Amino acid sequence: MSGPLLAVDAGGTSTRAVVLDADGTCRGTGRAGSGNPTSSGAATALASMARAARDALAAAAVAPGRVTGVVIAMAGAEGPLPSPALAAAVGYTGPAARLRRVGDLPAMYSSGTADAVGAALVCGTGSVAGRVADGELVRVVGGSGWLLGDAGSGYWTGLQVVRAVVAHLDGSGEATSLTAAVLAAEGVAAGDATRHGRPEHLHQLLDALYAAPPLALARFSPLAFAAAAGPAPDPVAARVVAQGGDALAALLRALRLQPGETLVAGGSTWRHGVAGSGAPRSPALTAALAGLRVQPAEDGLLGAAVLALRLDGPVDAVVHERVRSSLARLRGG
Amino acid sequence: MSGPLLAVDAGGTSTRAVVLDADGTCRGTGRAGSGNPTSSGAATALASMARAARDALAAAAVAPGRVTGVVIAMAGAEGPLPSPALAAAVGYTGPAARLRRVGDLPAMYSSGTADAVGAALVCGTGSVAGRVADGELVRVVGGSGWLLGDAGSGYWTGLQVVRAVVAHLDGSGEATSLTAAVLAAEGVAAGDATRHGRPEHLHQLLDALYAAPPLALARFSPLAFAAAAGPAPDPVAARVVAQGGDALAALLRALRLQPGETLVAGGSTWRHGVAGSGAPRSPALTAALAGLRVQPAEDGLLGAAVLALRLDGPVDAVVHERVRSSLARLRGG
Repeated sequence: MSGPLLAVDAGGTSTRAVVLDADGTCRGTGRAGSGNPTSSGAATALASMARAARDALAAAAVAPGRVTGVVIAMAGAEGPLPSPALAAAVGYTGPAARLRRVGDLPAMYSSGTADAVGAALVCGTGSVAGRVADGELVRVVGGSGWLLGDAGSGYWTGLQVVRAVVAHLDGSGEATSLTAAVLAAEGVAAGDATRHGRPEHLHQLLDALYAAPPLALARFSPLAFAAAAGPAPDPVAARVVAQGGDALAALLRALRLQPGETLVAGGSTWRHGVAGSGAPRSPALTAALAGLRVQPAEDGLLGAAVLALRLDGPVDAVVHERVRSSLARLRGG
Repeated sequence: MSGPLLAVDAGGTSTRAVVLDADGTCRGTGRAGSGNPTSSGAATALASMARAARDALAAAAVAPGRVTGVVIAMAGAEGPLPSPALAAAVGYTGPAARLRRVGDLPAMYSSGTADAVGAALVCGTGSVAGRVADGELVRVVGGSGWLLGDAGSGYWTGLQVVRAVVAHLDGSGEATSLTAAVLAAEGVAAGDATRHGRPEHLHQLLDALYAAPPLALARFSPLAFAAAAGPAPDPVAARVVAQGGDALAALLRALRLQPGETLVAGGSTWRHGVAGSGAPRSPALTAALAGLRVQPAEDGLLGAAVLALRLDGPVDAVVHERVRSSLARLRGG
């Protein structure tokens, strides 16, 4: 049995790390900001991973040099960051073969089940679905990034929110309650002043929105789910949420899942929006989920830990539960 | 009567310049690449304006120091480039008050009519509509940029094309003839190889598409109009074109134009796509145009020249026609 293992789940919003024993008992966790090199740049991503790993190692009272294996989960695991840079960031000095990079989808999948084979849907800042076998992606649908894919994701939903608000403010779109919410969130006061033929507050809003990177628009997605829920949903918000659900349904349909199959579903937009907001679910998404065993997962950290254990051998349901419960205790405390 | 005037129309795809006499006779033109600081950066935009202006001055045999007034038309005329930098770029050394920046919309408007007041629609890389009076925007709809607006534009249409192609290739979207066209345009060969759960050619396509700035996706918009035209239109392309037309109709409806009003319509996507491709026009757009006097315009260069003449006084229909015909002769030659 090997020594302690380190698992890192580097997401677009936050980066999480856990140090666990070889029997699956989680000993310490750490947390930092965005670990996604695409949205935040390589330097920020590496710094987030470094900080989350350092805090997890400190909490577990494990010296970095004692770590015998590392799994780093992130969107686009084949991406731009070289493995030696990842090893250096998390302080790993062991053999290169025991640092494994995995995608966010396999990590999320293994967060939800000990089964080696199945399907997962990650709907966070981005959206992707796929079939997974032994931590590898067999088939991927979606996950083509903010510009070319990711429909139904937090980014996509936030983008539709601000596009609807801009159209409302310039008169080309329907009025929506999202407008007041977005203006308030950006600290822009509505008024009667105009400049260059447009409301002054529209200028200010556009300046504020273009000042941040596009992916930061994901911050507005909770507004859509909130406005689409309740007894008097905002029609514009309801349409955005319904179209997002339709897009997620298209991802699932493309995987051709069979009745009774397990689908691990997670990501912040799934948990707090699609599944957890009370906003009505699109009929297409309800149909695509029908008959599946839908298993929720909080994020990919548990799965990254499970995949780290797999560096040493198979992980059964008992060990999976040990990882899950010990991690939950650490996170709850 | 003043000396020679310089007009520059800085667009997302190309930058055009003309030198004209104070009576409206155009003497020389120049042309360069993108002059849009938002899409191409300030340095590239200034270099394009410099080159177009230099060539126009050389063609007219006018020394830069003799120019008595300059109009520079560009999207977002209130944008980031300081006027002294613009003056330096085009070699203008006269009084600051005689260098005027105008939006792409007033320039396009004045390309189509000598009337001081009316409406215009510019549908090129971006899309914007507005009411114009004396070269100033009175009311603007759209034009909120690639991320937050510009529906129906060349960028937007190209984006829908590649999003549909990516969805086709990963199985979440409908099959479309646009896929073969986009793969061919990017030099990507379709094959059976897969990597990380996706077709190898999808990886290659995504890499190619993300390597260029988002606005460069406008290059794919002609594919949509071509595939939507003819006796057997591609359903996906037809839907993209119809939705784009609906978006342009929403801009026009927001302006509340009256029957008989003049609408100057131009921009590359309008000329070669919406109006000139043979693809069916969306019913909403047909309805929005009904009863208007639609006046086509090639680009904003003629209008920028007219607005340069206005530095010296009113421009009537006779002078407008002199600018138009002399510019057309230069461009035809």
